Amino acid sequence: MITRITTRDARFALQPGEGTDSVHTNPEYSYAVTHLLTESRHIGTGLAFTLGAGNDLVCKAAAELAQPLVGRDIEELMAEWGAVQRSLAEHPQYRWLGPHKGVVHLALASITNACFDLWAKTRGVPLWKLLLDLSPEQIVALLDLSYLEDVLTPLGALAVLNRNLPTRGERSSVISEGYPGYDTSVGWFQYEDERLGKNARRAVAQGFTALKLKVGSHDEERDIRRASLLREIVGPNVRLMFDANQQWSLPQAIRVCQRLAAVDPFWIEEPTHPDDVLAHQALAKAVAPMALALGEHVPNRVVFKNYLQAGAVEFVQVDAVRVGGVSEFLAVSLMARKFGKSVCPHVGDMGQIHQHLVLFNHIALGHDKLFLEQIPHLQGRFVRPAIVNDGVYITPQEPGSSSDLK
Amino acid sequence: MITRITTRDARFALQPGEGTDSVHTNPEYSYAVTHLLTESRHIGTGLAFTLGAGNDLVCKAAAELAQPLVGRDIEELMAEWGAVQRSLAEHPQYRWLGPHKGVVHLALASITNACFDLWAKTRGVPLWKLLLDLSPEQIVALLDLSYLEDVLTPLGALAVLNRNLPTRGERSSVISEGYPGYDTSVGWFQYEDERLGKNARRAVAQGFTALKLKVGSHDEERDIRRASLLREIVGPNVRLMFDANQQWSLPQAIRVCQRLAAVDPFWIEEPTHPDDVLAHQALAKAVAPMALALGEHVPNRVVFKNYLQAGAVEFVQVDAVRVGGVSEFLAVSLMARKFGKSVCPHVGDMGQIHQHLVLFNHIALGHDKLFLEQIPHLQGRFVRPAIVNDGVYITPQEPGSSSDLK
Repeated sequence: MITRITTRDARFALQPGEGTDSVHTNPEYSYAVTHLLTESRHIGTGLAFTLGAGNDLVCKAAAELAQPLVGRDIEELMAEWGAVQRSLAEHPQYRWLGPHKGVVHLALASITNACFDLWAKTRGVPLWKLLLDLSPEQIVALLDLSYLEDVLTPLGALAVLNRNLPTRGERSSVISEGYPGYDTSVGWFQYEDERLGKNARRAVAQGFTALKLKVGSHDEERDIRRASLLREIVGPNVRLMFDANQQWSLPQAIRVCQRLAAVDPFWIEEPTHPDDVLAHQALAKAVAPMALALGEHVPNRVVFKNYLQAGAVEFVQVDAVRVGGVSEFLAVSLMARKFGKSVCPHVGDMGQIHQHLVLFNHIALGHDKLFLEQIPHLQGRFVRPAIVNDGVYITPQEPGSSSDLK
Repeated sequence: MITRITTRDARFALQPGEGTDSVHTNPEYSYAVTHLLTESRHIGTGLAFTLGAGNDLVCKAAAELAQPLVGRDIEELMAEWGAVQRSLAEHPQYRWLGPHKGVVHLALASITNACFDLWAKTRGVPLWKLLLDLSPEQIVALLDLSYLEDVLTPLGALAVLNRNLPTRGERSSVISEGYPGYDTSVGWFQYEDERLGKNARRAVAQGFTALKLKVGSHDEERDIRRASLLREIVGPNVRLMFDANQQWSLPQAIRVCQRLAAVDPFWIEEPTHPDDVLAHQALAKAVAPMALALGEHVPNRVVFKNYLQAGAVEFVQVDAVRVGGVSEFLAVSLMARKFGKSVCPHVGDMGQIHQHLVLFNHIALGHDKLFLEQIPHLQGRFVRPAIVNDGVYITPQEPGSSSDLK
């Protein structure tokens, strides 16, 4: 039984240049942490990610919003998590601050993730195994599918899960082989060309086959120069992703993307404002077959639904520490599967939780085994940091969602 | 010069049933108030509206976000407000909590509105007169039009203003005649049929020619019965608006709207989730020529742009205490004008600020003189409450934006 709820405002300073992009110039990687204390020895830990300022607001909202969970048994809660989460998200006063976005929704992420963590710890299994051991019906009961009725009903979700059940075995080798990673820390925006080159050579030597570069300079030529430099260094067989972090207007995005075509991008990430579904739709058409990736700032399943309906996204970068936690991540992954789009999470959690979720997505939903972003800057901060060897995430075996901070 | 910034968490209990709708069952009308203190005797007052819980979070964010304004002169600030507001909105850490939505954007509304209030008080004129006395160039300098480049550039905004300049005189009679109002307080969700009927008769007797009813019951028949009752009472010549407050799924919305057609709705308001542009587009097509109204939960200009581009809204209910304040309200009004859509604000401010803004919209932008929502429950709380006589807002004459609370 959950007896008490506490929160922690955990902020971690980075080294100069780390984590920088064209828009976020001085990040302080931070977690609004929810702890669920129980009568047993287990403590559920949930994360929501921010860049520092305002992290306290998320903690405060989480502490208040989570109150209805006190006195509840975790197994009972999770048997109907979809309904419970909906009742939290639809709080008749807090809802006005969203709905389903911003501080209150980040708070919901932190709470939800704490519940999943506690559940897995109580059962003594890693999160990926917990999810894979559930029946399709139990998975669907975890989800709030409201406002998705036009594209994904509970029965539709069940159908996706059941359809992929017979072939799970074929995909389960990923557990022992590990899930491929890609390195985002190579090309932070403020890194000079020389450092960028050194990082890229090192990453390729370490076994990474995909790298990301931050673009979105006011000086467009800088972006083109650095993109070309990177392609020159890594050769034609390494995948390069270019991330503008929302810096461009639609007209700019079209122009720069057309120029970047020469360096063969695997995707263009967050070209413009994350609320602008129709701008992404127009861009996708203008630069096809170049692929767009986005999602780290898409707040909820409803906006993802619109992106999918509009054909405005190819790589769905839903983040379980941005949307309403693990369960909304799964709802979005189910929708993406229905639309035939890949899920390639943004890792505000540094990959700690997502290393579990991509295994479920691949095995249970039949999503491609693509690659999972990796950001190493907080490795020393986690009790059990994700381990990436030869460019591959080693499957975690300890109980829970790997979210505990030191 | 602005010397200090304070905030106030102002919450006002309502009488049972007041303010209730199908989703917001126990509202406590609240303002996150920003006060800008100056060396002179003027104090700028800015409002953002919430329903109670979490109002403190908005106050906290406003106090922090507004810090760069300390030491600034209000005339200098407002000469380049578009750039100043953008720099506040793009705070590299707080931005992560949005961007441009939720708690941080409500905070921006409160700050922005305080600046406009202080500016008008300093000049000794009501806000509507301040705005009308500005040149088109000065108006455009107030606006952050970033991410609108594909539909409204600064030059395009200037063109709308200049085009309507020669005919301003024809529309200026509204200042002495007053702007028509409509009464939302007739048909709160929890009011029983008898009270609903009594309220409707009284409102019509008071001169109102438009009334709103809250719908979105789990029991669809209740909605249909009450809508028919209201139509019977007011006769065919009073406009009736039906407000579902986002309660319906798309399939439900289509079904209930088709049934409501029989009572001749002037508009259907917030049929489903406010992020779901494409659901509103589909609904608008399915029930045409029935008109959709929405905006009280649309967080920013970018989402409004998508609604307009998609042909998914007929009556734009942008609210200056929800979006980033007066200036973003104006940006949205300019866009709506370009798309030929009416602006009919939601009044989280109870009409205090919007009574100024609709005069500007009509006279300077050439928007229709439609009607402005009126909600009387906080009249005793304002220093200078809006006055509505014979169904018409009497133009305020005191300096400022009528935002001061007792």
